[in-house]
Amino acid sequence: MAVESTLELGNNDERMRSDENLLISERSAVEDDDTTKGKVIESIEMTFKDIEIPSWKEQLTVRAFVVSAMLGVMFSFIVMKLSLTTGIIPSLNVAAGLLGFFFVKTWTKVLEQCGMLKHPFTRQENTVIQTCVVATSGIAFSGGFGSYLFGMSDVVASQSSDSDSPTRYMNIKNPSLGWIIGFLFVVSFIGLCSVVPLRKIMIIDFKLIYPSGTATAHLINSFHTSKGAKLAKQQVNALGKFFSFSFLWSFFQWFFVSDENECGFQNFPTFGLKAKENMFYFDFSTMYVGVGMICPYIINVSLLFGMILSWGIMWPLIEKKEGHWFEAGLKQGSFHGIQGYRVFTAIAIILGDGLYNFVKVLGNTGVGLYGQLKAKKSETVLPVATNGENQDNAQATSFDDQRRKQMFMKDQISTYLAVGGYLAIAAIATITLPHIFHPLEWYYVVIIYIFAPALAFCNAYGCGLTDWSLASTYGKLAIFVIGAWAGKSQGGVLAGLAACGVMMNIVSTASDLMSDFKTGYLTLASPRSMFVSQVIGTAMGCVIAPCVFWVFYSAFPNLGQQDSEYPAPYATVYRNLAILGVEGFEALPKNCLNICYGLFAAAIFINVARDTVPKKWGRFIPIPMAIAIPFYIPQPFAIDMCVGSLILFIWEKRNKTKADAFGPAVASGLICGEGLWSVPKSVLALTKVNPPICMRFFARGANLKVDDFLKTLSR
Amino acid sequence: MAVESTLELGNNDERMRSDENLLISERSAVEDDDTTKGKVIESIEMTFKDIEIPSWKEQLTVRAFVVSAMLGVMFSFIVMKLSLTTGIIPSLNVAAGLLGFFFVKTWTKVLEQCGMLKHPFTRQENTVIQTCVVATSGIAFSGGFGSYLFGMSDVVASQSSDSDSPTRYMNIKNPSLGWIIGFLFVVSFIGLCSVVPLRKIMIIDFKLIYPSGTATAHLINSFHTSKGAKLAKQQVNALGKFFSFSFLWSFFQWFFVSDENECGFQNFPTFGLKAKENMFYFDFSTMYVGVGMICPYIINVSLLFGMILSWGIMWPLIEKKEGHWFEAGLKQGSFHGIQGYRVFTAIAIILGDGLYNFVKVLGNTGVGLYGQLKAKKSETVLPVATNGENQDNAQATSFDDQRRKQMFMKDQISTYLAVGGYLAIAAIATITLPHIFHPLEWYYVVIIYIFAPALAFCNAYGCGLTDWSLASTYGKLAIFVIGAWAGKSQGGVLAGLAACGVMMNIVSTASDLMSDFKTGYLTLASPRSMFVSQVIGTAMGCVIAPCVFWVFYSAFPNLGQQDSEYPAPYATVYRNLAILGVEGFEALPKNCLNICYGLFAAAIFINVARDTVPKKWGRFIPIPMAIAIPFYIPQPFAIDMCVGSLILFIWEKRNKTKADAFGPAVASGLICGEGLWSVPKSVLALTKVNPPICMRFFARGANLKVDDFLKTLSR
Repeated sequence: MAVESTLELGNNDERMRSDENLLISERSAVEDDDTTKGKVIESIEMTFKDIEIPSWKEQLTVRAFVVSAMLGVMFSFIVMKLSLTTGIIPSLNVAAGLLGFFFVKTWTKVLEQCGMLKHPFTRQENTVIQTCVVATSGIAFSGGFGSYLFGMSDVVASQSSDSDSPTRYMNIKNPSLGWIIGFLFVVSFIGLCSVVPLRKIMIIDFKLIYPSGTATAHLINSFHTSKGAKLAKQQVNALGKFFSFSFLWSFFQWFFVSDENECGFQNFPTFGLKAKENMFYFDFSTMYVGVGMICPYIINVSLLFGMILSWGIMWPLIEKKEGHWFEAGLKQGSFHGIQGYRVFTAIAIILGDGLYNFVKVLGNTGVGLYGQLKAKKSETVLPVATNGENQDNAQATSFDDQRRKQMFMKDQISTYLAVGGYLAIAAIATITLPHIFHPLEWYYVVIIYIFAPALAFCNAYGCGLTDWSLASTYGKLAIFVIGAWAGKSQGGVLAGLAACGVMMNIVSTASDLMSDFKTGYLTLASPRSMFVSQVIGTAMGCVIAPCVFWVFYSAFPNLGQQDSEYPAPYATVYRNLAILGVEGFEALPKNCLNICYGLFAAAIFINVARDTVPKKWGRFIPIPMAIAIPFYIPQPFAIDMCVGSLILFIWEKRNKTKADAFGPAVASGLICGEGLWSVPKSVLALTKVNPPICMRFFARGANLKVDDFLKTLSR
Repeated sequence: MAVESTLELGNNDERMRSDENLLISERSAVEDDDTTKGKVIESIEMTFKDIEIPSWKEQLTVRAFVVSAMLGVMFSFIVMKLSLTTGIIPSLNVAAGLLGFFFVKTWTKVLEQCGMLKHPFTRQENTVIQTCVVATSGIAFSGGFGSYLFGMSDVVASQSSDSDSPTRYMNIKNPSLGWIIGFLFVVSFIGLCSVVPLRKIMIIDFKLIYPSGTATAHLINSFHTSKGAKLAKQQVNALGKFFSFSFLWSFFQWFFVSDENECGFQNFPTFGLKAKENMFYFDFSTMYVGVGMICPYIINVSLLFGMILSWGIMWPLIEKKEGHWFEAGLKQGSFHGIQGYRVFTAIAIILGDGLYNFVKVLGNTGVGLYGQLKAKKSETVLPVATNGENQDNAQATSFDDQRRKQMFMKDQISTYLAVGGYLAIAAIATITLPHIFHPLEWYYVVIIYIFAPALAFCNAYGCGLTDWSLASTYGKLAIFVIGAWAGKSQGGVLAGLAACGVMMNIVSTASDLMSDFKTGYLTLASPRSMFVSQVIGTAMGCVIAPCVFWVFYSAFPNLGQQDSEYPAPYATVYRNLAILGVEGFEALPKNCLNICYGLFAAAIFINVARDTVPKKWGRFIPIPMAIAIPFYIPQPFAIDMCVGSLILFIWEKRNKTKADAFGPAVASGLICGEGLWSVPKSVLALTKVNPPICMRFFARGANLKVDDFLKTLSR
C-alpha cells in the first residue's frame, strides 16, 4: 500500500510490518471462519456468493470520494507531521479501512432510515475508498516535503555541509505552493501508467502476495460479513475513544507550551534533568506511543538501542573532544561540529543497510523472476508464494480463484491508453521540469524516464514478493547519478534532489498501484474502478499535500530548524547525501569518516548476521536502519515508541485475543487524534494565538535563583 | 465503626456513607444468596452451619495482631495525612477488611503449603483484625492531631484570633511525644468501660442497626464463603493494582516539587493561571480522587458548591474591600483580614449544621428510647429498624438470631470489671490531667467524667440508629462549657481544648465499640475477643498515632501553616472555637459577624429544607457541613473529589455491577497508595533529601522575563 511502502524504514522492518498485518488478516479470516462454522473448506467468495457485484462505474460513488477526501486531508496532516518530525510513518491502512467503513456505513444507515438509500455499501466501494485515501496521503510522503523537496530550501541548506559554499545560491529552491503543485501533477501520474499493462502478469500469472494489499483485502472482506461488521464497529468504537483522548490530551498540552524549546510536556524531564539533556525523556506524545504500538517490537528496541548508542554514549564522548576533533564554539547545528557526526554516521548506516538490502532484493527478484519464467515455459503453475490462498483447500481455491480471475479480467484498461499516457506525461515532464529546476537539464529527465519503467517493474515485483518498497533507495540512486553528472558548479545538488523526486514518484506509485490491484483482486473490485480511484486520489493528493505542507510552513516559521519542534530530519539527510554525491567527503569533521566506515561495515555485518543466524536468534538482532534514525533526531520518540511497545506487550500478556483485535484500532486512534490536533494547532499558530502558560523545569538551585529574581520583579 | 464515626463531616453525609456501605453489604448478601441458590429462605448462618466456631481465646491469634499492627500503621499514616490536610476522612473499613482478609489468607496459604498451619482462618479472626485496625487508626483521629490537640500549639495560636493576646502564653501547649502518649493512654480506654455493661440492651434488646457495623459484618461473612472469597480476591487484586499506581504516581510527582509552594503537580494550573489563583485547579492527587469515589455524590457536589461560593465568589469580592472592611497590607493568614472571614464563616455554618443535627438526633434518640422502653414493658419486640435482618423470613431470622444470641451471650464481660475500670481510670485521669494541662483543674475532669457515661450512651444509641457519631459535637460542647468556666485569664482556651479531648475520646470510643459488638454479633465473634481486640488496638493506637504524628511534625517544619502542604485546618477551627467561647466576638473583622449570622441561619434553613422537602428533591440539596469545608482550606481537593465522582459516575453508567463491586476497592487502593507514600516521603524529608527538580508555571510574559534572566545568568 502507498503509505506502507513509503515508510522510510525501508527494509526488513517493512517485512515485519507486513507480517503483523498478515496476523491481522489471519485473525479476520478466523472471524470469517466462524460465520461458516462446520465447513471444513474455507472459501471467502462462497460467503459473498449471493451478493451482487456492482459494475465498475457503480463502485465509484460520490459518497466514496467525499469520504476519501475527508480522510485524505486528515491522513495528509498526520503523514506530514510525522515526516516533518521524525520521518517514521506507520501504516495507516487499518485506520483508513476502518474509518472509511465507519463513515460510509453511518452515511448509508442514515439514508436508509430516511428511505433514500439507492445503493447498499459494498466491499468494492470500501476498496475504492481505501485505495483513494492511501493514494492521497501517499503523495504527502512521496512529495518529499520531509525529504528531497524541502531539502532544496534555504533553511535546510543553511544547516547543511554546503552552508558556506560559494555556489550555494544555485542549489536553492524555496518551497512555494505554485511550483510544488505543478511539479507533483507532472511527476505523480506517470507511475500509474507504467505498470498497468503488467497487472495480469503480476497478479494472476505470478500470483504475487503483496502482504499489505492482501491484509487490507482480508480486513475489508471481514468487515462486510455480519460478524466482521460487529467487530469493526467495536474497533471503530475503540478507535474513536482513543482518538478523542489523544486529541483532547494534545489540546490540553498546548496550553502549557508558550515556548516550545523550554516549556510544556514535550520538555518533561521524566527521568531527571541530566537524562533530559541527553534526550532521554518521555514527552507524552500519544502519537508516537500509538506508532510504537503498531511497529513491531524489534523496531522499537532497535530505535532505543540506537538512541542509547548515539545520545547515551557516542555524542557525550565526542562532545568532550570539542576543540580537538572539531573547532570549539561553533554555532549549534553546524556540520563542522557535532551535528556533522550525527548526520553522517546515520547516513553511513542507512547506506550500508540500503546497499545490502538492495543487492539482496535484486537477487531475490532475479531468482524469483527466473523461476516464474521457467515455470511458465513448462506450462505448470509454480507459486512463488507458499502462504495465503495457496494453502487453502483446492476446491475452495479454485472457486475463489475462478471468481476473482473472472472479475479481474472483466474490465480491461487499454494498453494503448497506458503507453500513450506514459509517453505524453514524459514529454510534458521533459519540457516542464527544467523550467522548475534550472540545473535539471531536459536530457536528465529523458534518461530517467527511459530507465524508470524497468525500475518501477523491479520495485513492484519486489514489493509483491517482500512487501517492501525500495522507492527511497532508487531515489538516492538518482541523487548520486544525476548529482555527479550535473556537477558542483552547475547546481548538482538541486539537480540531484529534483531527480530524486522524479524517480521516487514513479517507483513508489507503481508498487502502490500494483498492491491496490491485489486488494481489488481479492475483494472483486474492478481494476478499472481501482485505476480511476487511484487517479482521482493522486490528483487530490497533488493539491491536498502541498496545501497541508503550506499550512505547516506558514504556521511554524522555524520549520526545518534542527532544534525546533519540526526539524524535518530527512530533509537534511537528503541534502547532505546530494552534497556528498557532488562534492565528496571534504566537508566532514575529523575522524567522522572513520566512524562512518566502521558503522557502514557494521550495518552490513548486522544484516548478514540477521540473515544467516538461525531465525530463533536472528529475530533478536536489531535492525541497522532503525538504529540509525535516532542518531540525528533530537527528539525522544524512541522512548515514546517503547512505551507503546510496553503497553502492547502487557496487553498481549493479559489478553492476547483482545490486544490483537483492538491494538491496531487503539494505536490508530492515538495517532489520528494527535495528528488531527495539528489542524487547529496550525490554525492557532497562523492566527498568532499563542499558548498562555509555560510549564518549565528547573534544577533545585536554579529554581531558588529564579525565585529571587521573581521577588525582585514583584517589588 | 471507629474511623467511620470519626468523619468530621459528621452528619447527614455520614448517613449517606453508611447507606453506601449498606449497598455493598447488600451486594455481598446477594453473593451469599447465590451460593444457596434455590432456597427461598436466606439464612446466613445456615451457610456456616458446619464450620466450628473457635473459642474466644482462639479467635485472638498472634498473626491477627501482627497484621493489625501493620495495617494500623498504614491507616494511621493515611488518617493523619488526611486530618492534617483537609480533615475529610473517608471510611477505610472496606480497605481494612479486604487487606486483613488478604494478608491472613496469604499467610495461612503459605503455612498450609508448608504443612505448618495449625488453625484455619475464620471470620471471627477476620472480625478481630478489623476491630483492632479500626481501633488503632481511630486514635489517629480522636487523638485530635488535626484538631484540638494540635490547636494548642504555638504554630496554630500564632495564626488564630488570639495571636496578639497578652495571656497567650497560658494557652499554649506544644506537642511532644511524651505527654501526648501519656494523655492518650489516660483518656482512650475509659470509653470502652462505659458501654460494655449496656451491650446486651443495645444489640439484642433494642436490635440497633449500626449500619457500618452491619455492612462490615456482611462483607466479612461474604469473604468466608467460597464465592465471596473469589470476589474478595479480585477486589484485592484491583486494590493492589491501584495501590501501586497511586504509590508510584506520588513517588514520580515528588521529584518535581523542590519547592512545595510553587512547584510540582500540586500547583498545576489545569484550568489556567487565573483559575489557579482562586484555587480552581486539579492537583493530581490520587488520594482525593479515591476519597471522591467513596464519598456520595452529594458530598462532592456540596464541596464544589462551597468552593465556588467561597473561593469563586465571596473571597474575591471581600478581597476587593481591603482597606475598607479590614486593614490593608496585613500579613498572610492574619485573622483580622481575609483569613478571619474564611474561618469564621465556615465555623458559623458548621455550628448551624451541628446545632440542627444535635437537636434532631437527640429528639430521635429520645423518641426511639421511649418506644423501646414502652415496647419492652408490653413484652413485645418492636424493632426500631425496619431493614436488614428484620425483613428476612421468620424462620431464617429465628435460626440466625438464635445462633447469634447464643454466641453473643456465651462469653460475658464482668460488669464489675467495667465499672471498676471506669472508676479507676477516671481517678487516674483526675490526678494526671491537671499536671499535663495546667489550666485544666481536677474538678473539671470530675465533672466531665460524671456526665460522660450518659453522653456516651446517647452517642452509642444515636450511632446505632443513624450511623452517625456526634463525638466532635460533644467535644465542641465541652470546649464552650469548660472554656467559659475557666475564663480567659485562667487559660480557658487551653482548658477548653483539653476538655474537648477528654470528652471526644470517651464518646467516640463508646460508639465505635458498640458498632464493633454489632459486627461481632453478626459474625459470631465473641464479645470478649472483641473487647480484648479493641483494648489491644487502642493501646497500639496510643503509641502508633503519636509516633506517626511525630514523623509528620519533624519532617515538615511548616506543619500547620495555613499556606503549606499540611495546613491542619481543623486545628485552627478548634482553637478559634475555644477563643470564641472564652472571649466572645471581639476579634472578628468588620461585617464578618453579619455574614456569619446569615450563613448560620442558612445552614439551619438548608437542613430543614433537606428534611421537609420530598426526598425526590431533597437529595439534590447540598449539605451545609460539606459546603463549609472548602471555605478555609486553600487546596483544590473539591475538584479532585469531583473528578473521583465523575469517574465513578461514568463507570456506573457503563457497568453498574462492576462499578459497585470494584469501586470501593479501586478507591481504597488510590487512597492507600498515596497514603503509604507519606512514609518514605517523611523519611526523605527527615534525612534532608530534597526533590531535585521544580516544575513550575509561568504566564507567557513572565516566562519571557525569566528567559532573559536565565540568559544573563549563563553569560
